[in-house]
Amino acid sequence: MPLVRIDINAGRSVAELEAVSDRIHGAIVDEYGIPSRDLFHILTEHPAGQLRAQDAGLGFERSNDVVMIQIFTQAGRSQEAKNALFARIASGLSEVGVAGEDVFIGYLENSPGDWSFGFGRAQYVTGELGVPVF
Amino acid sequence: MPLVRIDINAGRSVAELEAVSDRIHGAIVDEYGIPSRDLFHILTEHPAGQLRAQDAGLGFERSNDVVMIQIFTQAGRSQEAKNALFARIASGLSEVGVAGEDVFIGYLENSPGDWSFGFGRAQYVTGELGVPVF
Amino acid sequence: MPLVRIDINAGRSVAELEAVSDRIHGAIVDEYGIPSRDLFHILTEHPAGQLRAQDAGLGFERSNDVVMIQIFTQAGRSQEAKNALFARIASGLSEVGVAGEDVFIGYLENSPGDWSFGFGRAQYVTGELGVPVF
Repeated sequence: MPLVRIDINAGRSVAELEAVSDRIHGAIVDEYGIPSRDLFHILTEHPAGQLRAQDAGLGFERSNDVVMIQIFTQAGRSQEAKNALFARIASGLSEVGVAGEDVFIGYLENSPGDWSFGFGRAQYVTGELGVPVF
Repeated sequence: MPLVRIDINAGRSVAELEAVSDRIHGAIVDEYGIPSRDLFHILTEHPAGQLRAQDAGLGFERSNDVVMIQIFTQAGRSQEAKNALFARIASGLSEVGVAGEDVFIGYLENSPGDWSFGFGRAQYVTGELGVPVF
Repeated sequence: MPLVRIDINAGRSVAELEAVSDRIHGAIVDEYGIPSRDLFHILTEHPAGQLRAQDAGLGFERSNDVVMIQIFTQAGRSQEAKNALFARIASGLSEVGVAGEDVFIGYLENSPGDWSFGFGRAQYVTGELGVPVF
């Protein structure tokens, strides 16, 4: 179920966009053990100046390659699991040219019954999909 | 209060976009009993390749007509109410040509005090709006 | 950490967009005491008809200048703090030409461990950033 919003500056090629999306998805599959077809990404390209991401005082600068990631998914995973996911996303993105400085992630939680994958049914409630346990 | 984000592939006419938005709003009005002017939608069209929505393993394929819906609203409604809303959204969208396969919904909850409809006031807290009870 | 999504109708100049973003950020800095470099905004411009924001029955009309704001941040602040933030956002935006009628705000909460500002680390968990207390 994770729904992932990815906001980036315009200028990447279609192949580059897909690589970014693929690496984020691969990280979630690897760390959270979700099915490979549990893929729900919304990418949005922005003209210059519409993404603003500073460093929260950590002492680094971002580039125009910044990738702003917002993950919406089921509550209940441990902080350790989240930490591992964040690290895997950054390492995956580094393999497609995104520096660590340029990976921003925010995470929001909801419940299995808050998802409908099609046909107006809440498939984790109907039993069509098994609820992830962790 | 529901704030609804609707992400779709570019290519629909303005009238088609409005029909999609209207059907989603009508479903919320019908199922949740919100006022008809409690309408807050953010539609975003995307170039090809920027919306990725598979089937979570359920065994179906989506088309380019996929409608990705994210609903932000007050916590506390029952799963039965959510189920009815999801079903009504899908049936409403089917009447404007969106197949059940193409309706993806994610739902996020907050509190009445988390909304300001104008003038910097939290109208459910000030009493200008009655807090929905259910 | 606040991540702020700002959705507006196309037509403002780059300077006007920046003024809107700056005023929202300034309000958060002033009211919540966050560092000035704790700035994470995603602005999205929309063609006509894609932002729909009515009045929830309060009895006013919005203009095309409507600013739809979604704030994602750490849970735990009081309603009084949120009220003050909403008021400050509206007063700040009024100074750059946005009427009170045109300020819509929704607020979503998560936890300090739900943020990674770079390098795949959750900096509020690692201790690189101090967790805000309030």
